[in-house]
Amino acid sequence: MTHTVVSSATKEVVIGFDRPFVVIGERINPTGRKLLAAEMAAGDYSRVRADAIAQVEAGAHMLDVNAGIPLADEPAILAESIQLVQSLTDVPLSIDSSIVAALEAGLKVYKGKALLNSVTGEEERLEVVLPLVKKYGAAVIAISNDETGISPDPDVRYEVAKKIVQRAMDYGIPAADVVVDPLVMPVGALNDAGRQVFRLVRRLREELKVNTCCGASNFSFGLPNRHGLNASFLAMLTGAGMTSAIMNPLRPEEMTAILAADVANGHDENCMRWIQKFREPISADAANQGQRAGRENRRRRAAGATTEAV
Amino acid sequence: MTHTVVSSATKEVVIGFDRPFVVIGERINPTGRKLLAAEMAAGDYSRVRADAIAQVEAGAHMLDVNAGIPLADEPAILAESIQLVQSLTDVPLSIDSSIVAALEAGLKVYKGKALLNSVTGEEERLEVVLPLVKKYGAAVIAISNDETGISPDPDVRYEVAKKIVQRAMDYGIPAADVVVDPLVMPVGALNDAGRQVFRLVRRLREELKVNTCCGASNFSFGLPNRHGLNASFLAMLTGAGMTSAIMNPLRPEEMTAILAADVANGHDENCMRWIQKFREPISADAANQGQRAGRENRRRRAAGATTEAV
Repeated sequence: MTHTVVSSATKEVVIGFDRPFVVIGERINPTGRKLLAAEMAAGDYSRVRADAIAQVEAGAHMLDVNAGIPLADEPAILAESIQLVQSLTDVPLSIDSSIVAALEAGLKVYKGKALLNSVTGEEERLEVVLPLVKKYGAAVIAISNDETGISPDPDVRYEVAKKIVQRAMDYGIPAADVVVDPLVMPVGALNDAGRQVFRLVRRLREELKVNTCCGASNFSFGLPNRHGLNASFLAMLTGAGMTSAIMNPLRPEEMTAILAADVANGHDENCMRWIQKFREPISADAANQGQRAGRENRRRRAAGATTEAV
Repeated sequence: MTHTVVSSATKEVVIGFDRPFVVIGERINPTGRKLLAAEMAAGDYSRVRADAIAQVEAGAHMLDVNAGIPLADEPAILAESIQLVQSLTDVPLSIDSSIVAALEAGLKVYKGKALLNSVTGEEERLEVVLPLVKKYGAAVIAISNDETGISPDPDVRYEVAKKIVQRAMDYGIPAADVVVDPLVMPVGALNDAGRQVFRLVRRLREELKVNTCCGASNFSFGLPNRHGLNASFLAMLTGAGMTSAIMNPLRPEEMTAILAADVANGHDENCMRWIQKFREPISADAANQGQRAGRENRRRRAAGATTEAV
């Protein structure tokens, strides 16, 4: 059984085939959020703070932290953001950057065992990122593309993932610390995107025996009712073997689907988390309503009316 | 590729691994609906009529018709109901009864190739139902229990299904005309119910190569937010290989999950059915709002404000 263990200073999270699905909150990312980018560049972290707290309250098990702001001092801003988020919450973080200096700046200040986001199959990236993963004892997300880009053929993407895992092991990083992102394509452009990724995730789990992670929302790009589509797709991904995702925990559709998937996959013992989330609270109001309903039923029964479903 | 072809007088529906999931509307069933039962027993079919039309409008591909009313003349009522529903809609029907005389009364009046619901692995049932299936050229739902009841062991249920398929072939009924119900257990009572049925559905598809059908809502029995749980479970069932379900098409959560699953399984070409269902209508109101939004954006840009996501 493959377990990827990540941690903060005080809390451990295990990504694994036999564990509840791990939700990694995606919100702390200035890409496409110009106001957040401007604030972070100016040293205003109020929105980072609010996003961190809101995502953990909504049920995120980990948070992704990205500071990719053009022309800004990304290593410094990423390090500051990580220190801030670690001071606010105890969930482990994924340190997210395409700049190696930023990844290292994040790792330097991080307390615990981080998830580094990410390495690809490109030689140049492997040679600089994997030594960092080893040096800081981190886990790493491996994206299944290389110098030739993202292959439309899932079997090629499988081979890229396999190469990354093997290279990681050459550096002394255990395969369990490599979490593969199989890359989700937009189904609006590629009709077979869902089946392809289900098959790839199943191979990654059964043959390569690694944990997996993805940005699932790309699947619904360009289509209406994106959250409705993402929700079912996420549940189906877990059925194929996906064990974590970088996603927006503030969206109720997707979070309900993840909780339901945990129930269906047998990873919610006695359905306790489902029941806790969705049971109806017994308030004074509800108790009063119950009394009223009881009186109404007695009245109707006395009058010979039926109260059953029609 | 296994295709179960059923039909009305004018319309064919194909249940198959490469086809959109087939939704069989469950509403025309007096079990647990005392008012409907009383009306049907008294010859009032107004609710049957309304339920038939509403379910087809909501997207049901087939309708299940059941007339199981204690102490009533079930064969006559079932035959009447089937004739009425066939006069109102052109979708194929599933003829649903535990009484053999009622099944035959339904088959006698049915126009097209019906789905008979159901036969079990009990010798007594096999010997009377399978000859009917053969005589009327129907397809049949095979429920994977036998004289010993419903086995909690999915491998035993697989063997029961296999026995029914073999017995059907002995009667000259092709395996493709047997749609197996693997039996969904309530996950609130059996924590492993989801994984068990996923594995069983996969075996039924890959080893026995039959289509499958179930009453999925049993899964959430006793739990809160049943529709939220059913929706993800249904999507995951399709991922495991389930090809049809007897369900309530009037519930938007479950129907959205089925449409999303068709997209993710590559069974909604160019996502056309998804887009048709969920695209936003362009009304005069929306066009006016668009103009207003355009003016507002120009005003904000002129004032130096950002309109991007924050």
